[in-house]
Amino acid sequence: MPKVGIVMGSDSDIVQMSKAADILDEFDIEYDMQIISAHREPDELIEWCRGARDRGIHVIIAGAGMAAALPGMCAALFNGPVIGVPLSAKVLDGTDALYSMLQMPPGVPVAVVAIDGAKNAGLLAAQILSTGDGADAEAIAGKLASYKKEMKDGVVKKNDRLQEIGHREYIKERK
Amino acid sequence: MPKVGIVMGSDSDIVQMSKAADILDEFDIEYDMQIISAHREPDELIEWCRGARDRGIHVIIAGAGMAAALPGMCAALFNGPVIGVPLSAKVLDGTDALYSMLQMPPGVPVAVVAIDGAKNAGLLAAQILSTGDGADAEAIAGKLASYKKEMKDGVVKKNDRLQEIGHREYIKERK
Amino acid sequence: MPKVGIVMGSDSDIVQMSKAADILDEFDIEYDMQIISAHREPDELIEWCRGARDRGIHVIIAGAGMAAALPGMCAALFNGPVIGVPLSAKVLDGTDALYSMLQMPPGVPVAVVAIDGAKNAGLLAAQILSTGDGADAEAIAGKLASYKKEMKDGVVKKNDRLQEIGHREYIKERK
Amino acid sequence: MPKVGIVMGSDSDIVQMSKAADILDEFDIEYDMQIISAHREPDELIEWCRGARDRGIHVIIAGAGMAAALPGMCAALFNGPVIGVPLSAKVLDGTDALYSMLQMPPGVPVAVVAIDGAKNAGLLAAQILSTGDGADAEAIAGKLASYKKEMKDGVVKKNDRLQEIGHREYIKERK
Amino acid sequence: MPKVGIVMGSDSDIVQMSKAADILDEFDIEYDMQIISAHREPDELIEWCRGARDRGIHVIIAGAGMAAALPGMCAALFNGPVIGVPLSAKVLDGTDALYSMLQMPPGVPVAVVAIDGAKNAGLLAAQILSTGDGADAEAIAGKLASYKKEMKDGVVKKNDRLQEIGHREYIKERK
Amino acid sequence: MPKVGIVMGSDSDIVQMSKAADILDEFDIEYDMQIISAHREPDELIEWCRGARDRGIHVIIAGAGMAAALPGMCAALFNGPVIGVPLSAKVLDGTDALYSMLQMPPGVPVAVVAIDGAKNAGLLAAQILSTGDGADAEAIAGKLASYKKEMKDGVVKKNDRLQEIGHREYIKERK
Amino acid sequence: MPKVGIVMGSDSDIVQMSKAADILDEFDIEYDMQIISAHREPDELIEWCRGARDRGIHVIIAGAGMAAALPGMCAALFNGPVIGVPLSAKVLDGTDALYSMLQMPPGVPVAVVAIDGAKNAGLLAAQILSTGDGADAEAIAGKLASYKKEMKDGVVKKNDRLQEIGHREYIKERK
Amino acid sequence: MPKVGIVMGSDSDIVQMSKAADILDEFDIEYDMQIISAHREPDELIEWCRGARDRGIHVIIAGAGMAAALPGMCAALFNGPVIGVPLSAKVLDGTDALYSMLQMPPGVPVAVVAIDGAKNAGLLAAQILSTGDGADAEAIAGKLASYKKEMKDGVVKKNDRLQEIGHREYIKERK
Repeated sequence: MPKVGIVMGSDSDIVQMSKAADILDEFDIEYDMQIISAHREPDELIEWCRGARDRGIHVIIAGAGMAAALPGMCAALFNGPVIGVPLSAKVLDGTDALYSMLQMPPGVPVAVVAIDGAKNAGLLAAQILSTGDGADAEAIAGKLASYKKEMKDGVVKKNDRLQEIGHREYIKERK
Repeated sequence: MPKVGIVMGSDSDIVQMSKAADILDEFDIEYDMQIISAHREPDELIEWCRGARDRGIHVIIAGAGMAAALPGMCAALFNGPVIGVPLSAKVLDGTDALYSMLQMPPGVPVAVVAIDGAKNAGLLAAQILSTGDGADAEAIAGKLASYKKEMKDGVVKKNDRLQEIGHREYIKERK
Repeated sequence: MPKVGIVMGSDSDIVQMSKAADILDEFDIEYDMQIISAHREPDELIEWCRGARDRGIHVIIAGAGMAAALPGMCAALFNGPVIGVPLSAKVLDGTDALYSMLQMPPGVPVAVVAIDGAKNAGLLAAQILSTGDGADAEAIAGKLASYKKEMKDGVVKKNDRLQEIGHREYIKERK
Repeated sequence: MPKVGIVMGSDSDIVQMSKAADILDEFDIEYDMQIISAHREPDELIEWCRGARDRGIHVIIAGAGMAAALPGMCAALFNGPVIGVPLSAKVLDGTDALYSMLQMPPGVPVAVVAIDGAKNAGLLAAQILSTGDGADAEAIAGKLASYKKEMKDGVVKKNDRLQEIGHREYIKERK
Repeated sequence: MPKVGIVMGSDSDIVQMSKAADILDEFDIEYDMQIISAHREPDELIEWCRGARDRGIHVIIAGAGMAAALPGMCAALFNGPVIGVPLSAKVLDGTDALYSMLQMPPGVPVAVVAIDGAKNAGLLAAQILSTGDGADAEAIAGKLASYKKEMKDGVVKKNDRLQEIGHREYIKERK
Repeated sequence: MPKVGIVMGSDSDIVQMSKAADILDEFDIEYDMQIISAHREPDELIEWCRGARDRGIHVIIAGAGMAAALPGMCAALFNGPVIGVPLSAKVLDGTDALYSMLQMPPGVPVAVVAIDGAKNAGLLAAQILSTGDGADAEAIAGKLASYKKEMKDGVVKKNDRLQEIGHREYIKERK
Repeated sequence: MPKVGIVMGSDSDIVQMSKAADILDEFDIEYDMQIISAHREPDELIEWCRGARDRGIHVIIAGAGMAAALPGMCAALFNGPVIGVPLSAKVLDGTDALYSMLQMPPGVPVAVVAIDGAKNAGLLAAQILSTGDGADAEAIAGKLASYKKEMKDGVVKKNDRLQEIGHREYIKERK
Repeated sequence: MPKVGIVMGSDSDIVQMSKAADILDEFDIEYDMQIISAHREPDELIEWCRGARDRGIHVIIAGAGMAAALPGMCAALFNGPVIGVPLSAKVLDGTDALYSMLQMPPGVPVAVVAIDGAKNAGLLAAQILSTGDGADAEAIAGKLASYKKEMKDGVVKKNDRLQEIGHREYIKERK
């Protein structure tokens, strides 16, 4: 049973939003990914959001670009945490989507991550699921600790290589 | 029977949005003014928007601040024209509300007026109602022509006074 | 007899603005498309705008980039609704055109749609023409309802495919 | 034992950040509120963040203005979810703080709420704690549902009053 | 016979725009100050601009706020130099007016000065009139040289005082 | 003897700035084009600016990108009109250069044209030189009138073609 | 003999810039404070900057608002480090001054601190003077260490009080 | 023994940051270049920064993109001057990194250079090291003077070529 819902406003968002899915796969967290447009399918959105908790969904990740109403409407319709991913489009560098989901009124929060930051949305969902008290939560917490360690080790390894060969050679190798 | 719906997301918007109502009163156009929050009352919004045309409403004016989902959701739920009024708040000068209603996806337009420009929203509603072919439309068109003329006369009169007394005296008189 | 006027400031805007025309064609609404520059041909603009209503034009769609005076000057010269399309150029992402038509003074509204949003301008014109009481208006209203339904069906179909094959296959298919 | 940590970079943030505390009080969620500056007390921050989970803290709310490194550093040092509250200062409307916590690199998410949106940060913390499977989580989920309902009822009541007395009287009453 | 035309879009601009007039008075340059709104009185604007050169006007200073079409329309209608003064309003810090007059299309320049910089507009007009070859031009050039010298002397004098009494006393004296 | 000085901060600006030169060539106005960096050659700049009037220069056009001090320093050192051309670079879309020359303090105006708008800078210089009373000024005024007319005719011709063949064919022809 | 030069473009900057002086007083570092406008007194600026090193000045702090050419011109004329302080004015929140000094071309750096951040400019000057190898440098380094410790102790003390009395009482005490 | 530390948050910054290293090489100043992420390796950063002075490091250059906490954390942990280089990424043109390091709180300065301005960061480090009183400092000061002269000569040479062949030929040669 999926614990995370991933919803996007258009299938043009799918490459970005699949980064959230990939992270959840890495953490063995099941998810339900949907394309539902707030502005084109309000009824479908309502049905999907309102029934989400009963279908086992604890967190929603909603990605959208431009006048990105999707995360906010999810937050209006779902009582658990909603993570918003502002997606950049041809103009405005994603600031339109950012403001559309960040500046939520008091009482209806959306947890916004970086512009085009779907990967972090997946990680944040994992962190949220790690706050519970059961064995699942603990397993995720363990994986988060390992993930952080690997990330650190990756940078350390790169730095070791830099110390070894110097920046001029390093730049050549990177290409 | 009201022809225009005026809806705002919070009663803190009422001073601004009443400027739209005042213009409609001037043009003898009936309206139905409501406080409905997209993020707090999605069901109420759906009901009000979906039934609007059957209640005689031809145009909706929707004003909201911050992550202003209201105009876009009205446009999703109502098939006629929706006018959006971005309202400024404590920070960001209303650009958050502006982007949230301006950058609508293809297929779901919102007609946006100036930041805090509710008066122009009222006039735009009147202009829209003047495009019909009946007597009502013609009456509104006549009033729009008079309105424009009065506006022009107002500026001319001020300029005449400026020519008469010069800018130094004019500034004193204005205070 | 055309019911909508489409005017742009330069022939470099024609690819964008033809999206408005295409939508009107889809709705069987006649239009009159013109290239008239507010800054280079003020007399031509005045003549075209002032005579528009008598030539049957009920709505004007005006698209322009940079210091986009065109929509505002149309609004000054035409008593019906004017829709403004801010067009992006090499720098500033269209915010210059946006502010030049959005921030109209009280009394002279322009109905602004998204940056490079000519398609929505066409739809908004159709919505405006659907507010009348005659058979034409009703025909347009019917088409708008169908248009919305098709748009929804399009997203539903894409989502169905996503559910069927999963996001990894979907991304491959999209390419 | 507190389940939420509230940390701010300076005591000048305390009025804003206490809104998060007030919401947690409303939801009977214990919290530990601290003033710790990332730039002035890095060691204190490390100690407090690293030991947080062992002290029972499941979520951190971090508020800061200007070059707001605090939420990001909390996210670097704590494995659970970190909520960032960008606080506005004399210039830039809080966009400096916003970018400083929003644009986190892949692997280290911060969940950002609206500028000066500490109240929503408190609610988001409650939502996160509601995702667990124990009785506590369910109690919070129940309160969240009631909270949403009260919020809705509040708007409905205001709208009822507006329908009763009209906008001119309503504005007078509000003052 | 006035050599400079000063035009503003609304009498609410008169305090700012009178700073341009004051400078011209200082330089003994005659001017003709008018309130003419591009959006409310296009015909008056055309008449005034087209006839300007024949009435002796060599330079136009046009100040406007928001969607500031006035300077650009003056540039469309008058063949000599047009100076634009972007005026700040309640929101957007005058950037709307700035973009509306700065981003003119090739072929129709506007010479833009600082936001709310009407004083510099007056000086720029004087500089422009100093480029001619007659005695008037030379007289203005002489005054511009004196003006610059006085400006410099003013700063030198303040600095001398600072050196004399130190910054703590200086701050007290300034209050 | 050149009447216009064209100065740029770096030879990387030469393609943009040569558009000003091309216009002046079209108007038979002599110019003196220089690469002088305000930040790298302050002495050369001072010498060139201070001696400019004696060398016959009546107007300076100064183009620069980034922290564009050049136009402002020209204005400090030359008593006649200085036209500033903000040039866009890899980031910030030229707003850095724009603010660096637009926001001049009272007493030292710069006449700023559009971002990357060197062509308009050339035209503005011509307009300024047309304000004198001699035969040269009148000749330039005559050419400005012809230039405007040709510009208008160019748009009219394009519009005629559009009316003839419609927008779909027109788009094909333009490619 | 002063080791730091503090220069500002106008005496209206003196309250802000005296914060840099106050810090230098605290660190027993002598300074020479001047009001010199880059745009109004280029010769004075050149003389003061070029002779600075011979007068013992090792670091220059330059504060200016709007089109803030002062720090960049100091960097052009002085070979040592130049610290820039962007000062906010009535509009644009100091971003104009920021860009005017931040975006320096390669070869001519300015070290920019926060908007209105003159205090940090003073501290940065002290840090720079602490990099030398003599006894003076070491004394400053010692004071910088103490300064940091006191700063930390100040926050710790405030936090202790918060733990003692709770946030509601703390807010009351702060008023 | 290296006198300058160069640190970057990710190896994707290495091409940009190596420009600082190249300049230091030109000035025969030794440096220690490291990849250390503030958000992924807080312990490594603390260790490297706290021990820097004892390892001979007098100045730190820290480059980072997005939520660029690195320079600020260096400034928290190191008592000498810290130079920040804001690096641009896919969106926002580096303004996110800029604000994250510019808007430091009082007491903890960062010396920020232009967006992607690592070359100037290297020069600023050299300028800082030239403020000491020993022979090394004087040697650097001498090289800085030569560097400035060569830079000037480079522009003069280009300008000489422009005077020789004119702008049309010059543009061809540059390609």
